[in-house]
Amino acid sequence: VIAYERPVRFDEVDPAGIVFFARFMNYAHEAMENFFSDIEGGYAGLIQARKIGFPTVRLEADFNAPLRYGDKLRVETSCSKLGNTSATFVHEMRREVGGELCAVVRHVVVTVTLGVLKPCAMPDDVRARFVAHLTPGQ
Amino acid sequence: VIAYERPVRFDEVDPAGIVFFARFMNYAHEAMENFFSDIEGGYAGLIQARKIGFPTVRLEADFNAPLRYGDKLRVETSCSKLGNTSATFVHEMRREVGGELCAVVRHVVVTVTLGVLKPCAMPDDVRARFVAHLTPGQ
Amino acid sequence: VIAYERPVRFDEVDPAGIVFFARFMNYAHEAMENFFSDIEGGYAGLIQARKIGFPTVRLEADFNAPLRYGDKLRVETSCSKLGNTSATFVHEMRREVGGELCAVVRHVVVTVTLGVLKPCAMPDDVRARFVAHLTPGQ
Amino acid sequence: VIAYERPVRFDEVDPAGIVFFARFMNYAHEAMENFFSDIEGGYAGLIQARKIGFPTVRLEADFNAPLRYGDKLRVETSCSKLGNTSATFVHEMRREVGGELCAVVRHVVVTVTLGVLKPCAMPDDVRARFVAHLTPGQ
Repeated sequence: VIAYERPVRFDEVDPAGIVFFARFMNYAHEAMENFFSDIEGGYAGLIQARKIGFPTVRLEADFNAPLRYGDKLRVETSCSKLGNTSATFVHEMRREVGGELCAVVRHVVVTVTLGVLKPCAMPDDVRARFVAHLTPGQ
Repeated sequence: VIAYERPVRFDEVDPAGIVFFARFMNYAHEAMENFFSDIEGGYAGLIQARKIGFPTVRLEADFNAPLRYGDKLRVETSCSKLGNTSATFVHEMRREVGGELCAVVRHVVVTVTLGVLKPCAMPDDVRARFVAHLTPGQ
Repeated sequence: VIAYERPVRFDEVDPAGIVFFARFMNYAHEAMENFFSDIEGGYAGLIQARKIGFPTVRLEADFNAPLRYGDKLRVETSCSKLGNTSATFVHEMRREVGGELCAVVRHVVVTVTLGVLKPCAMPDDVRARFVAHLTPGQ
Repeated sequence: VIAYERPVRFDEVDPAGIVFFARFMNYAHEAMENFFSDIEGGYAGLIQARKIGFPTVRLEADFNAPLRYGDKLRVETSCSKLGNTSATFVHEMRREVGGELCAVVRHVVVTVTLGVLKPCAMPDDVRARFVAHLTPGQ
Protein backbone atom coordinates (compact mmCIF):
# COMPACT_ATOMS: atom_id res chain seq x y z
CA VAL A 1 0.00 0.00 0.00
CA ILE A 2 1.33 3.39 -0.99
CA ALA A 3 -0.08 6.43 0.78
CA TYR A 4 -0.52 9.84 -0.78
CA GLU A 5 -1.66 12.91 1.12
CA ARG A 6 -2.57 16.44 0.19
CA PRO A 7 -5.08 19.12 1.24
CA VAL A 8 -8.43 19.44 -0.50
CA ARG A 9 -8.26 22.55 -2.68
CA PHE A 10 -10.88 25.28 -2.79
CA ASP A 11 -11.59 24.76 -6.48
CA GLU A 12 -12.39 21.07 -5.93
CA VAL A 13 -15.40 21.82 -3.75
CA ASP A 14 -18.82 22.29 -5.27
CA PRO A 15 -21.63 24.71 -4.38
CA ALA A 16 -23.03 22.10 -1.97
CA GLY A 17 -19.84 22.48 0.07
CA ILE A 18 -18.39 19.02 -0.62
CA VAL A 19 -15.74 17.71 -2.99
CA PHE A 20 -17.47 17.16 -6.34
CA PHE A 21 -17.81 13.41 -6.98
CA ALA A 22 -15.94 13.47 -10.30
CA ARG A 23 -12.89 14.94 -8.53
CA PHE A 24 -12.33 11.64 -6.74
CA MET A 25 -11.40 10.22 -10.15
CA ASN A 26 -8.82 12.97 -10.55
CA TYR A 27 -7.56 12.00 -7.09
CA ALA A 28 -7.35 8.37 -8.26
CA HIS A 29 -5.19 9.41 -11.20
CA GLU A 30 -3.04 11.58 -8.97
CA ALA A 31 -2.56 8.62 -6.61
CA MET A 32 -1.63 6.47 -9.62
CA GLU A 33 0.96 9.06 -10.68
CA ASN A 34 2.32 8.91 -7.13
CA PHE A 35 2.24 5.09 -7.21
CA PHE A 36 4.67 5.20 -10.14
CA SER A 37 6.87 7.95 -8.70
CA ASP A 38 9.69 5.54 -7.76
CA ILE A 39 9.98 4.17 -11.28
CA GLU A 40 12.79 5.61 -13.41
CA GLY A 41 11.46 8.99 -14.61
CA GLY A 42 8.15 8.49 -12.82
CA TYR A 43 4.82 8.45 -14.62
CA ALA A 44 6.01 11.37 -16.76
CA GLY A 45 8.94 9.27 -17.94
CA LEU A 46 6.64 6.37 -18.77
CA ILE A 47 4.39 8.43 -21.01
CA GLN A 48 6.93 10.86 -22.46
CA ALA A 49 10.15 8.88 -22.86
CA ARG A 50 8.78 5.35 -23.10
CA LYS A 51 5.47 6.26 -24.78
CA ILE A 52 3.56 3.88 -22.51
CA GLY A 53 0.22 4.81 -20.99
CA PHE A 54 -2.41 3.28 -18.74
CA PRO A 55 -5.87 4.30 -19.90
CA THR A 56 -8.76 3.30 -17.65
CA VAL A 57 -11.16 0.76 -19.15
CA ARG A 58 -13.36 0.15 -16.11
CA LEU A 59 -14.13 2.24 -13.06
CA GLU A 60 -16.10 1.71 -9.86
CA ALA A 61 -16.51 4.05 -6.93
CA ASP A 62 -18.41 3.98 -3.68
CA PHE A 63 -18.94 7.15 -1.72
CA ASN A 64 -19.39 6.84 2.03
CA ALA A 65 -18.78 10.27 3.50
CA PRO A 66 -18.16 13.74 2.12
CA LEU A 67 -14.80 15.47 2.02
CA ARG A 68 -14.96 19.19 2.69
CA TYR A 69 -12.73 22.20 2.23
CA GLY A 70 -10.26 22.28 5.11
CA ASP A 71 -9.92 18.48 5.07
CA LYS A 72 -6.72 16.78 4.12
CA LEU A 73 -7.09 13.84 1.75
CA ARG A 74 -5.22 10.58 2.36
CA VAL A 75 -5.26 8.00 -0.42
CA GLU A 76 -4.02 4.45 0.20
CA THR A 77 -3.34 2.75 -3.10
CA SER A 78 -2.77 -0.91 -3.85
CA CYS A 79 -3.33 -3.40 -6.69
CA SER A 80 -6.09 -5.98 -6.26
CA LYS A 81 -5.61 -7.86 -9.53
CA LEU A 82 -2.75 -8.16 -11.99
CA GLY A 83 -3.05 -9.54 -15.53
CA ASN A 84 -0.74 -9.68 -18.52
CA THR A 85 -1.43 -6.16 -19.72
CA SER A 86 -4.02 -4.98 -17.19
CA ALA A 87 -4.06 -4.13 -13.51
CA THR A 88 -6.74 -3.09 -11.03
CA PHE A 89 -6.01 -0.21 -8.70
CA VAL A 90 -7.81 0.15 -5.38
CA HIS A 91 -7.72 3.58 -3.79
CA GLU A 92 -9.06 4.02 -0.27
CA MET A 93 -9.68 7.72 0.15
CA ARG A 94 -9.80 8.91 3.73
CA ARG A 95 -10.08 12.11 5.68
CA GLU A 96 -6.55 12.33 7.10
CA VAL A 97 -7.71 13.49 10.54
CA GLY A 98 -9.70 10.64 12.06
CA GLY A 99 -9.14 8.36 9.09
CA GLU A 100 -12.79 8.09 8.03
CA LEU A 101 -13.18 6.26 4.73
CA CYS A 102 -14.84 8.76 2.37
CA ALA A 103 -14.64 6.87 -0.91
CA VAL A 104 -13.21 3.75 -2.48
CA VAL A 105 -12.27 3.98 -6.15
CA ARG A 106 -11.31 0.92 -8.18
CA HIS A 107 -10.15 1.26 -11.73
CA VAL A 108 -8.80 -1.19 -14.27
CA VAL A 109 -6.04 0.12 -16.49
CA VAL A 110 -4.50 -1.45 -19.57
CA THR A 111 -0.90 -0.98 -20.65
CA VAL A 112 -0.86 0.62 -24.10
CA THR A 113 1.52 2.14 -26.58
CA LEU A 114 0.54 5.80 -26.73
CA GLY A 115 -0.47 7.29 -30.04
CA VAL A 116 -1.95 4.08 -31.41
CA LEU A 117 -3.47 3.23 -27.99
CA LYS A 118 -2.90 -0.51 -28.57
CA PRO A 119 -2.29 -2.93 -25.66
CA CYS A 120 1.35 -3.82 -25.15
CA ALA A 121 3.47 -5.81 -22.74
CA MET A 122 3.70 -4.38 -19.23
CA PRO A 123 7.30 -3.25 -18.54
CA ASP A 124 9.10 -5.24 -15.84
CA ASP A 125 9.61 -2.30 -13.49
CA VAL A 126 5.91 -1.43 -13.71
CA ARG A 127 4.95 -5.05 -13.01
CA ALA A 128 7.33 -5.18 -10.05
CA ARG A 129 5.67 -2.11 -8.60
CA PHE A 130 2.25 -3.77 -8.83
CA VAL A 131 3.56 -7.04 -7.38
CA ALA A 132 5.08 -5.22 -4.42
CA HIS A 133 1.69 -3.71 -3.58
CA LEU A 134 -0.61 -6.58 -4.48
CA THR A 135 -3.50 -7.04 -2.05
CA PRO A 136 -5.66 -9.69 -3.78
CA GLY A 137 -8.26 -9.77 -1.00
CA GLN A 138 -9.54 -6.25 -1.60
CA VAL B 1 -34.16 8.61 -22.97
CA ILE B 2 -33.06 12.22 -22.97
CA ALA B 3 -30.24 13.18 -25.32
CA TYR B 4 -27.65 15.85 -24.66
CA GLU B 5 -25.06 16.99 -27.16
CA ARG B 6 -22.11 19.31 -27.09
CA PRO B 7 -18.58 19.53 -28.55
CA VAL B 8 -15.59 18.16 -26.67
CA ARG B 9 -13.64 21.14 -25.37
CA PHE B 10 -9.89 21.62 -25.73
CA ASP B 11 -9.34 21.74 -21.96
CA GLU B 12 -11.01 18.34 -21.51
CA VAL B 13 -8.37 16.52 -23.51
CA ASP B 14 -5.24 15.16 -21.87
CA PRO B 15 -1.64 15.04 -23.11
CA ALA B 16 -2.35 11.61 -24.64
CA GLY B 17 -4.82 13.32 -26.97
CA ILE B 18 -8.00 11.79 -25.56
CA VAL B 19 -10.69 13.02 -23.18
CA PHE B 20 -9.36 12.42 -19.66
CA PHE B 21 -11.33 9.56 -18.06
CA ALA B 22 -12.48 11.58 -15.04
CA ARG B 23 -14.12 14.09 -17.40
CA PHE B 24 -16.74 11.50 -18.33
CA MET B 25 -18.04 11.85 -14.76
CA ASN B 26 -18.36 15.62 -15.29
CA TYR B 27 -20.24 14.77 -18.51
CA ALA B 28 -22.53 12.47 -16.48
CA HIS B 29 -23.34 15.32 -14.10
CA GLU B 30 -23.90 17.69 -16.99
CA ALA B 31 -26.29 15.17 -18.56
CA MET B 32 -28.07 14.88 -15.19
CA GLU B 33 -28.43 18.68 -15.06
CA ASN B 34 -29.90 18.50 -18.56
CA PHE B 35 -32.18 15.60 -17.52
CA PHE B 36 -33.76 17.92 -14.93
CA SER B 37 -33.95 20.96 -17.20
CA ASP B 38 -37.71 20.66 -17.74
CA ILE B 39 -38.45 20.69 -14.02
CA GLU B 40 -39.60 24.03 -12.61
CA GLY B 41 -36.40 26.05 -12.17
CA GLY B 42 -34.26 23.19 -13.51
CA TYR B 43 -31.51 21.58 -11.45
CA ALA B 44 -30.47 25.02 -10.22
CA GLY B 45 -33.96 25.54 -8.82
CA LEU B 46 -33.84 22.18 -7.08
CA ILE B 47 -30.62 22.91 -5.24
CA GLN B 48 -30.98 26.66 -4.70
CA ALA B 49 -34.70 27.25 -4.09
CA ARG B 50 -35.75 23.81 -2.84
CA LYS B 51 -32.43 22.90 -1.17
CA ILE B 52 -32.59 19.39 -2.58
CA GLY B 53 -29.53 17.65 -3.97
CA PHE B 54 -28.59 14.32 -5.52
CA PRO B 55 -25.15 13.26 -4.35
CA THR B 56 -23.68 10.19 -6.01
CA VAL B 57 -23.21 7.20 -3.73
CA ARG B 58 -22.11 4.64 -6.31
CA LEU B 59 -20.51 4.96 -9.71
CA GLU B 60 -19.57 2.54 -12.48
CA ALA B 61 -18.08 3.31 -15.85
CA ASP B 62 -16.91 1.27 -18.80
CA PHE B 63 -14.72 2.83 -21.45
CA ASN B 64 -14.89 1.37 -24.93
CA ALA B 65 -13.42 3.94 -27.27
CA PRO B 66 -11.65 7.28 -26.89
CA LEU B 67 -13.22 10.66 -27.52
CA ARG B 68 -10.89 13.18 -29.10
CA TYR B 69 -10.77 16.91 -29.62
CA GLY B 70 -12.91 17.74 -32.62
CA ASP B 71 -15.49 15.11 -31.65
CA LYS B 72 -18.98 16.05 -30.59
CA LEU B 73 -20.27 14.21 -27.52
CA ARG B 74 -23.79 12.76 -27.45
CA VAL B 75 -25.10 11.49 -24.11
CA GLU B 76 -28.29 9.43 -23.92
CA THR B 77 -29.58 9.41 -20.37
CA SER B 78 -32.21 7.20 -18.77
CA CYS B 79 -33.02 5.70 -15.37
CA SER B 80 -32.46 1.97 -14.87
CA LYS B 81 -33.72 1.67 -11.28
CA LEU B 82 -35.91 3.83 -9.10
CA GLY B 83 -36.21 3.50 -5.32
CA ASN B 84 -37.84 5.56 -2.60
CA THR B 85 -35.07 8.09 -2.27
CA SER B 86 -32.53 6.76 -4.77
CA ALA B 87 -32.29 6.43 -8.54
CA THR B 88 -29.77 4.94 -10.96
CA PHE B 89 -28.79 6.97 -14.00
CA VAL B 90 -27.45 5.30 -17.13
CA HIS B 91 -25.56 7.54 -19.53
CA GLU B 92 -24.55 6.16 -22.91
CA MET B 93 -21.83 8.43 -24.20
CA ARG B 94 -21.33 8.36 -27.94
CA ARG B 95 -19.31 10.09 -30.62
CA GLU B 96 -22.06 12.04 -32.33
CA VAL B 97 -20.76 11.35 -35.84
CA GLY B 98 -21.08 7.60 -36.42
CA GLY B 99 -22.66 6.96 -33.03
CA GLU B 100 -19.86 4.81 -31.61
CA LEU B 101 -20.38 4.04 -27.94
CA CYS B 102 -17.35 5.51 -26.15
CA ALA B 103 -18.36 5.03 -22.53
CA VAL B 104 -21.26 3.96 -20.35
CA VAL B 105 -21.53 5.64 -16.97
CA ARG B 106 -23.96 4.45 -14.33
CA HIS B 107 -24.36 6.33 -11.08
CA VAL B 108 -26.70 5.94 -8.15
CA VAL B 109 -27.88 9.17 -6.57
CA VAL B 110 -29.77 9.71 -3.34
CA THR B 111 -32.22 12.53 -2.74
CA VAL B 112 -30.97 14.63 0.18
CA THR B 113 -31.68 17.86 1.97
CA LEU B 114 -28.67 20.06 1.28
CA GLY B 115 -26.67 21.40 4.18
CA VAL B 116 -27.33 18.40 6.43
CA LEU B 117 -26.96 15.99 3.49
CA LYS B 118 -29.65 13.67 4.95
CA PRO B 119 -31.86 11.50 2.70
CA CYS B 120 -35.32 12.94 2.12
CA ALA B 121 -38.42 12.12 0.10
CA MET B 122 -38.04 12.44 -3.65
CA PRO B 123 -40.23 15.31 -4.93
CA ASP B 124 -43.13 14.24 -7.18
CA ASP B 125 -41.92 16.16 -10.22
CA VAL B 126 -38.46 14.61 -9.91
CA ARG B 127 -39.97 11.12 -9.57
CA ALA B 128 -42.20 11.73 -12.60
CA ARG B 129 -39.13 12.64 -14.64
CA PHE B 130 -37.43 9.38 -13.70
CA VAL B 131 -40.60 7.35 -14.37
CA ALA B 132 -40.94 8.89 -17.83
CA HIS B 133 -37.43 7.74 -18.72
CA LEU B 134 -37.30 4.42 -16.90
CA THR B 135 -35.51 1.69 -18.87
CA PRO B 136 -35.25 -1.16 -16.34
CA GLY B 137 -33.54 -3.53 -18.75
CA GLN B 138 -30.31 -1.54 -18.99
CA VAL C 1 -18.46 40.43 -32.62
CA ILE C 2 -19.23 36.75 -32.30
CA ALA C 3 -21.56 35.68 -29.51
CA TYR C 4 -21.35 32.40 -27.64
CA GLU C 5 -23.89 31.25 -25.08
CA ARG C 6 -24.17 28.34 -22.71
CA PRO C 7 -25.43 27.65 -19.18
CA VAL C 8 -23.09 27.86 -16.19
CA ARG C 9 -22.40 24.31 -15.05
CA PHE C 10 -22.63 23.06 -11.48
CA ASP C 11 -18.98 22.03 -11.37
CA GLU C 12 -17.85 25.54 -12.34
CA VAL C 13 -19.22 27.11 -9.16
CA ASP C 14 -17.12 27.33 -6.03
CA PRO C 15 -18.06 26.88 -2.36
CA ALA C 16 -18.81 30.63 -2.17
CA GLY C 17 -21.62 30.04 -4.67
CA ILE C 18 -20.09 31.93 -7.60
CA VAL C 19 -18.22 30.89 -10.72
CA PHE C 20 -14.59 30.42 -9.70
CA PHE C 21 -12.50 33.26 -11.19
CA ALA C 22 -10.11 30.97 -13.06
CA ARG C 23 -13.07 29.45 -14.93
CA PHE C 24 -13.53 32.71 -16.82
CA MET C 25 -10.24 31.93 -18.55
CA ASN C 26 -11.63 28.53 -19.59
CA TYR C 27 -14.67 30.45 -20.89
CA ALA C 28 -12.31 32.72 -22.85
CA HIS C 29 -10.70 29.71 -24.50
CA GLU C 30 -14.10 28.19 -25.23
CA ALA C 31 -15.19 31.46 -26.84
CA MET C 32 -11.96 31.43 -28.88
CA GLU C 33 -12.71 27.89 -30.04
CA ASN C 34 -16.17 29.12 -31.05
CA PHE C 35 -14.63 32.17 -32.76
CA PHE C 36 -12.75 29.80 -35.07
CA SER C 37 -15.68 27.43 -35.64
CA ASP C 38 -16.35 28.69 -39.18
CA ILE C 39 -12.80 28.06 -40.32
CA GLU C 40 -12.24 24.84 -42.29
CA GLY C 41 -12.10 22.10 -39.64
CA GLY C 42 -12.60 24.62 -36.81
CA TYR C 43 -10.07 25.07 -34.03
CA ALA C 44 -9.61 21.30 -33.89
CA GLY C 45 -8.58 21.32 -37.54
CA LEU C 46 -6.11 24.12 -36.91
CA ILE C 47 -4.29 22.30 -34.15
CA GLN C 48 -4.65 18.71 -35.35
CA ALA C 49 -4.42 18.88 -39.15
CA ARG C 50 -2.49 22.11 -39.60
CA LYS C 51 -0.45 21.88 -36.38
CA ILE C 52 -1.02 25.55 -35.63
CA GLY C 53 -1.81 26.79 -32.15
CA PHE C 54 -2.48 30.06 -30.36
CA PRO C 55 -0.89 30.04 -26.92
CA THR C 56 -1.71 32.97 -24.67
CA VAL C 57 1.24 35.23 -23.84
CA ARG C 58 -0.61 37.95 -21.95
CA LEU C 59 -3.89 37.99 -20.07
CA GLU C 60 -5.97 40.64 -18.35
CA ALA C 61 -9.33 40.29 -16.68
CA ASP C 62 -11.66 42.58 -14.79
CA PHE C 63 -14.45 41.14 -12.70
CA ASN C 64 -17.51 43.30 -12.18
CA ALA C 65 -20.30 41.01 -11.01
CA PRO C 66 -20.57 37.35 -10.05
CA LEU C 67 -22.05 34.63 -12.22
CA ARG C 68 -24.02 32.02 -10.31
CA TYR C 69 -25.38 28.56 -10.90
CA GLY C 70 -28.61 28.89 -12.85
CA ASP C 71 -27.23 31.79 -14.90
CA LYS C 72 -26.61 31.48 -18.60
CA LEU C 73 -23.31 32.87 -19.81
CA ARG C 74 -23.11 35.03 -22.93
CA VAL C 75 -19.67 35.86 -24.31
CA GLU C 76 -19.21 38.51 -27.00
CA THR C 77 -15.84 38.08 -28.64
CA SER C 78 -13.94 40.44 -30.90
CA CYS C 79 -10.35 41.33 -31.76
CA SER C 80 -8.97 44.64 -30.48
CA LYS C 81 -5.50 44.44 -32.04
CA LEU C 82 -4.01 42.46 -34.87
CA GLY C 83 -0.28 42.05 -35.51
CA ASN C 84 1.80 39.90 -37.85
CA THR C 85 1.70 36.79 -35.71
CA SER C 86 -0.26 38.00 -32.68
CA ALA C 87 -3.83 39.04 -31.96
CA THR C 88 -5.68 40.39 -28.93
CA PHE C 89 -9.04 38.87 -28.07
CA VAL C 90 -11.61 40.81 -26.06
CA HIS C 91 -14.34 38.76 -24.43
CA GLU C 92 -17.24 40.54 -22.77
CA MET C 93 -18.86 38.03 -20.47
CA ARG C 94 -22.45 38.77 -19.56
CA ARG C 95 -25.32 37.21 -17.67
CA GLU C 96 -27.61 36.35 -20.59
CA VAL C 97 -30.78 37.45 -18.75
CA GLY C 98 -30.49 41.19 -18.23
CA GLY C 99 -27.15 41.43 -20.00
CA GLU C 100 -25.12 42.55 -16.98
CA LEU C 101 -21.39 42.64 -17.73
CA CYS C 102 -19.80 40.18 -15.29
CA ALA C 103 -16.24 40.10 -16.58
CA VAL C 104 -14.06 41.33 -19.41
CA VAL C 105 -11.17 39.09 -20.41
CA ARG C 106 -8.47 40.23 -22.81
CA HIS C 107 -5.77 37.87 -23.96
CA VAL C 108 -2.98 38.15 -26.47
CA VAL C 109 -2.26 35.02 -28.47
CA VAL C 110 0.63 34.26 -30.79
CA THR C 111 0.42 32.01 -33.83
CA VAL C 112 2.84 29.13 -33.37
CA THR C 113 3.80 25.84 -34.93
CA LEU C 114 2.81 23.21 -32.39
CA GLY C 115 5.47 20.88 -31.05
CA VAL C 116 8.29 23.39 -31.34
CA LEU C 117 6.00 26.23 -30.14
CA LYS C 118 7.78 28.73 -32.41
CA PRO C 119 5.95 31.78 -33.85
CA CYS C 120 4.85 31.33 -37.44
CA ALA C 121 2.87 33.24 -40.07
CA MET C 122 -0.81 33.63 -39.34
CA PRO C 123 -2.85 31.68 -41.95
CA ASP C 124 -4.98 33.82 -44.26
CA ASP C 125 -8.31 32.36 -43.15
CA VAL C 126 -7.43 32.98 -39.52
CA ARG C 127 -6.40 36.56 -40.29
CA ALA C 128 -9.61 37.12 -42.24
CA ARG C 129 -11.62 35.98 -39.23
CA PHE C 130 -9.84 38.50 -37.01
CA VAL C 131 -10.23 41.29 -39.57
CA ALA C 132 -13.97 40.63 -39.84
CA HIS C 133 -14.35 41.10 -36.10
CA LEU C 134 -11.82 43.85 -35.47
CA THR C 135 -12.99 46.46 -32.94
CA PRO C 136 -9.87 48.58 -32.39
CA GLY C 137 -11.56 50.94 -29.97
CA GLN C 138 -12.01 48.38 -27.23
CA VAL D 1 7.93 35.94 -0.18
CA ILE D 2 6.27 32.63 0.52
CA ALA D 3 7.21 29.70 -1.69
CA TYR D 4 4.90 26.89 -2.67
CA GLU D 5 5.96 23.83 -4.64
CA ARG D 6 4.20 20.87 -6.16
CA PRO D 7 4.45 18.67 -9.27
CA VAL D 8 2.47 19.51 -12.40
CA ARG D 9 -0.34 16.98 -12.65
CA PHE D 10 -1.24 15.00 -15.76
CA ASP D 11 -4.76 16.42 -15.93
CA GLU D 12 -3.41 19.99 -15.99
CA VAL D 13 -1.67 19.53 -19.31
CA ASP D 14 -3.45 20.17 -22.58
CA PRO D 15 -3.32 18.33 -25.90
CA ALA D 16 -0.47 20.64 -26.98
CA GLY D 17 1.62 19.13 -24.18
CA ILE D 18 1.84 22.22 -21.98
CA VAL D 19 0.01 23.36 -18.86
CA PHE D 20 -3.24 24.97 -20.05
CA PHE D 21 -3.01 28.74 -19.52
CA ALA D 22 -6.13 28.95 -17.35
CA ARG D 23 -4.56 26.50 -14.90
CA PHE D 24 -2.04 29.13 -13.86
CA MET D 25 -4.96 30.98 -12.28
CA ASN D 26 -5.83 27.85 -10.30
CA TYR D 27 -2.16 27.77 -9.26
CA ALA D 28 -2.46 31.40 -8.17
CA HIS D 29 -5.41 30.55 -5.95
CA GLU D 30 -3.61 27.52 -4.56
CA ALA D 31 -0.62 29.72 -3.75
CA MET D 32 -3.00 32.19 -2.06
CA GLU D 33 -4.45 29.35 0.03
CA ASN D 34 -0.90 28.44 0.99
CA PHE D 35 -0.10 32.10 1.73
CA PHE D 36 -2.82 32.05 4.40
CA SER D 37 -1.91 28.64 5.80
CA ASP D 38 -0.29 30.06 8.94
CA ILE D 39 -3.38 32.04 9.89
CA GLU D 40 -5.58 30.45 12.56
CA GLY D 41 -7.62 27.82 10.69
CA GLY D 42 -5.96 28.69 7.37
CA TYR D 43 -7.91 29.89 4.36
CA ALA D 44 -10.59 27.29 5.12
CA GLY D 45 -11.08 28.85 8.55
CA LEU D 46 -11.35 32.30 7.02
CA ILE D 47 -14.13 31.34 4.65
CA GLN D 48 -15.94 28.74 6.76
CA ALA D 49 -15.68 29.97 10.36
CA ARG D 50 -15.20 33.69 9.80
CA LYS D 51 -17.23 33.94 6.56
CA ILE D 52 -14.61 36.15 4.96
CA GLY D 53 -13.55 35.72 1.36
CA PHE D 54 -11.16 37.31 -1.14
CA PRO D 55 -12.73 37.40 -4.58
CA THR D 56 -10.50 38.53 -7.43
CA VAL D 57 -11.52 41.80 -9.05
CA ARG D 58 -8.57 42.23 -11.40
CA LEU D 59 -6.13 39.80 -12.93
CA GLU D 60 -3.03 40.08 -15.08
CA ALA D 61 -0.75 37.35 -16.31
CA ASP D 62 2.31 37.17 -18.49
CA PHE D 63 3.45 33.86 -19.90
CA ASN D 64 7.14 33.48 -20.67
CA ALA D 65 7.82 29.78 -20.97
CA PRO D 66 5.73 26.61 -20.95
CA LEU D 67 5.43 24.22 -18.03
CA ARG D 68 5.23 20.56 -19.04
CA TYR D 69 4.23 17.29 -17.47
CA GLY D 70 7.15 16.06 -15.40
CA ASP D 71 8.01 19.59 -14.28
CA LYS D 72 7.67 20.69 -10.69
CA LEU D 73 6.03 24.06 -10.17
CA ARG D 74 7.48 26.59 -7.74
CA VAL D 75 5.38 29.65 -6.91
CA GLU D 76 6.86 32.61 -5.05
CA THR D 77 4.09 34.76 -3.64
CA SER D 78 4.24 38.26 -2.23
CA CYS D 79 2.01 41.34 -1.95
CA SER D 80 2.84 44.34 -4.14
CA LYS D 81 0.12 46.71 -2.91
CA LEU D 82 -2.01 46.84 0.21
CA GLY D 83 -5.15 48.97 0.58
CA ASN D 84 -7.89 49.21 3.19
CA THR D 85 -9.89 46.27 1.93
CA SER D 86 -7.87 45.21 -1.12
CA ALA D 87 -4.49 43.64 -1.77
CA THR D 88 -2.49 42.75 -4.85
CA PHE D 89 -0.84 39.35 -5.00
CA VAL D 90 2.20 38.73 -7.20
CA HIS D 91 2.95 35.11 -8.01
CA GLU D 92 6.19 34.26 -9.80
CA MET D 93 5.72 30.81 -11.23
CA ARG D 94 8.92 28.94 -11.99
CA ARG D 95 10.08 25.55 -13.14
CA GLU D 96 11.61 24.26 -9.94
CA VAL D 97 14.60 22.67 -11.69
CA GLY D 98 16.61 25.54 -13.19
CA GLY D 99 14.28 28.21 -11.84
CA GLU D 100 13.10 29.52 -15.20
CA LEU D 101 10.29 32.03 -14.83
CA CYS D 102 7.32 30.54 -16.70
CA ALA D 103 4.58 32.98 -15.74
CA VAL D 104 3.86 35.95 -13.53
CA VAL D 105 0.31 36.27 -12.25
CA ARG D 106 -0.91 39.39 -10.46
CA HIS D 107 -4.38 39.54 -9.01
CA VAL D 108 -6.18 42.08 -6.89
CA VAL D 109 -8.48 40.68 -4.24
CA VAL D 110 -11.02 42.47 -2.07
CA THR D 111 -11.96 41.42 1.45
CA VAL D 112 -15.67 40.61 1.53
CA THR D 113 -18.29 39.13 3.79
CA LEU D 114 -19.33 35.90 2.10
CA GLY D 115 -22.96 35.41 1.14
CA VAL D 116 -23.63 39.11 0.54
CA LEU D 117 -20.21 39.52 -1.12
CA LYS D 118 -19.89 43.09 0.27
CA PRO D 119 -16.46 44.63 1.04
CA CYS D 120 -15.54 44.52 4.73
CA ALA D 121 -12.60 45.41 6.94
CA MET D 122 -9.53 43.28 6.47
CA PRO D 123 -8.89 41.24 9.65
CA ASP D 124 -5.70 42.15 11.53
CA ASP D 125 -4.07 38.74 11.14
CA VAL D 126 -4.69 38.82 7.38
CA ARG D 127 -3.25 42.33 7.13
CA ALA D 128 -0.21 41.29 9.15
CA ARG D 129 0.40 38.45 6.72
CA PHE D 130 0.35 40.85 3.78
CA VAL D 131 2.59 43.38 5.57
CA ALA D 132 5.14 40.66 6.34
CA HIS D 133 5.41 39.84 2.63
CA LEU D 134 5.04 43.29 1.12
CA THR D 135 7.32 43.87 -1.87
CA PRO D 136 6.12 47.23 -3.22
CA GLY D 137 8.66 47.35 -6.02
CA GLN D 138 7.22 44.43 -7.95
